[in-house]
Amino acid sequence: MKIIDHSVLKTKSKDILKKFGADEFSAESVSKGLVETSLRGVDSHGIRLLPHYINALKNGRINGAPKFKTNNKYPALIGLDADNSFGHAAGFKSVEIGMKIAEEHGISAVSVLNSSHPGAMASFSLEAARNGFCSFSFTHADALIQSYGGKNPFFGTNPICFAAPRKNEEPFCLDMAPTFIPWNKILETKETNKLLENKVAVDSNGNPTNNPLDAKALIGIGNYKGFALAAMVEVLCSTMSGMPFGPHISSMYKSSIKEKRKLGQFYIFFKNDVNVDNEEFMNTLEKMTLEVRNQEPNHPGNKVQMPNDPQIKTSQERLKDGIPVMENVMELLF
Amino acid sequence: MKIIDHSVLKTKSKDILKKFGADEFSAESVSKGLVETSLRGVDSHGIRLLPHYINALKNGRINGAPKFKTNNKYPALIGLDADNSFGHAAGFKSVEIGMKIAEEHGISAVSVLNSSHPGAMASFSLEAARNGFCSFSFTHADALIQSYGGKNPFFGTNPICFAAPRKNEEPFCLDMAPTFIPWNKILETKETNKLLENKVAVDSNGNPTNNPLDAKALIGIGNYKGFALAAMVEVLCSTMSGMPFGPHISSMYKSSIKEKRKLGQFYIFFKNDVNVDNEEFMNTLEKMTLEVRNQEPNHPGNKVQMPNDPQIKTSQERLKDGIPVMENVMELLF
Repeated sequence: MKIIDHSVLKTKSKDILKKFGADEFSAESVSKGLVETSLRGVDSHGIRLLPHYINALKNGRINGAPKFKTNNKYPALIGLDADNSFGHAAGFKSVEIGMKIAEEHGISAVSVLNSSHPGAMASFSLEAARNGFCSFSFTHADALIQSYGGKNPFFGTNPICFAAPRKNEEPFCLDMAPTFIPWNKILETKETNKLLENKVAVDSNGNPTNNPLDAKALIGIGNYKGFALAAMVEVLCSTMSGMPFGPHISSMYKSSIKEKRKLGQFYIFFKNDVNVDNEEFMNTLEKMTLEVRNQEPNHPGNKVQMPNDPQIKTSQERLKDGIPVMENVMELLF
Repeated sequence: MKIIDHSVLKTKSKDILKKFGADEFSAESVSKGLVETSLRGVDSHGIRLLPHYINALKNGRINGAPKFKTNNKYPALIGLDADNSFGHAAGFKSVEIGMKIAEEHGISAVSVLNSSHPGAMASFSLEAARNGFCSFSFTHADALIQSYGGKNPFFGTNPICFAAPRKNEEPFCLDMAPTFIPWNKILETKETNKLLENKVAVDSNGNPTNNPLDAKALIGIGNYKGFALAAMVEVLCSTMSGMPFGPHISSMYKSSIKEKRKLGQFYIFFKNDVNVDNEEFMNTLEKMTLEVRNQEPNHPGNKVQMPNDPQIKTSQERLKDGIPVMENVMELLF
């Protein structure tokens, strides 16, 4: 593990993406998304994914020079065929298209097809929020959340992301999977010979296990509610786009690296100034934020935070101190 | 408790709403919303609310004959001043406005201000889904979910609702609060001298309690995630509309019944046929539904269900057998 400055990491990762055939927009999108996600401390979806992405690019799963096609049947609801691009490229293209339309109509949505793994959805909603828009970003993923009452997973740990502009600081942002832990936590626990917390994962019979070696799926939050949220996101990303759903989605790691992922994403963008002006919106959101942070804790040492507070803090630290980079990524980049 | 036919209940409740000054649209909206919610078995948000609503109407909290005003600054993002109407009236008005605009633009949103308690949000998203639209419905509420790590609640048990049209049966519909149980469950447990399940509620120090007499707030699902979802819905309903947020929202039951609630709601409506046609969308969603229901259970007796499955079942039963109605509602109606 080495500590690397974020701008060096951005330049180096962009260069290598281009070297392996990514066009300027794709290389910019992926390097920007991965480095910002690492800056925010979301290491599972950050620069550690670069070797996998390069591998997918080299082997034809990903088209590094996509020809995006839009379906303009409706003025404010756009279909975007991503031509098997990087998910990040499809995401930032959606932001670009969606903001332009929302500026005029007040709201817009982009239903993406033929896309791939887009990393952290916060990359896209934060981009829109920094430009003054509220937005939702959704993606589906391969089956990994236990079906409530079921033996096996059906839906992926399909995330929900929402961001909105805020005065004086980074946007409000929520980016969450409907499970207690990410799958990556299972892998990490395996490597360190530790046990999992109770009731976060299930074995191949659908029974809770704290042994990472037996873990086959993750438990959804709030009993049936996490599973239900995953189902909702699946409708938005798969039924809307015409892409495969649930168990019919190819696996990120287990399927052939030549195989197109055929993932869908769904984005909504809207203005914040229909009932109040932009200044008032941003000020009120900041006022709410400060009131939330100033609440009395239930125990000394606890602290009430808004969503995104931990990521903002890590981001400030890593902007200054650099980003931890794993050995296999270092070898690829330097 | 008496069992009453749904159509009788609808007519009787509509009549009494009109008798106390509600106009045709308001009386139709409230009676339709309440009776359908009871049909679906969501008794906490069904016909049991009628006496409270009538009380609010008689005492001036609710305007039974509102003059709705729209702000048409943007063609597809509408501001709706509900003039202190019933939340149900504002909700069905939003559906009416939103579907018309989404038909043309592909997507629309309505940000409602000066509204009140809207009952179950499924009323509105189901109405839109039966007319072929996908939709989100959100409302905020008075502070009742524990702030994660905090002593007191800040946000309400702000629900998320999404529905989409489906072939051969009722729409897909998720309508959930970000807590394990509704507040109503606390009241019910109090009355029966039972204990609560563990880790669903906290006392006045923000510590978990299973004594309903000590319960002061509800615990959010998924550790911080339930609290974070409530925060997201607050931005959509309060920051967008200019209405008060969190602890500044008046209480449904504890505030003066003369006091306007000044609640906000947020609705998004969109077409399902930008990438696939309506038939394909509805068929694929039904196919996914059947596959989900056919999954192997983790234990004999368990059954994997889609969101809305329990409500569809209860609805079919109660359409035939009638709706259980509490004594105080019976006295009001008959």
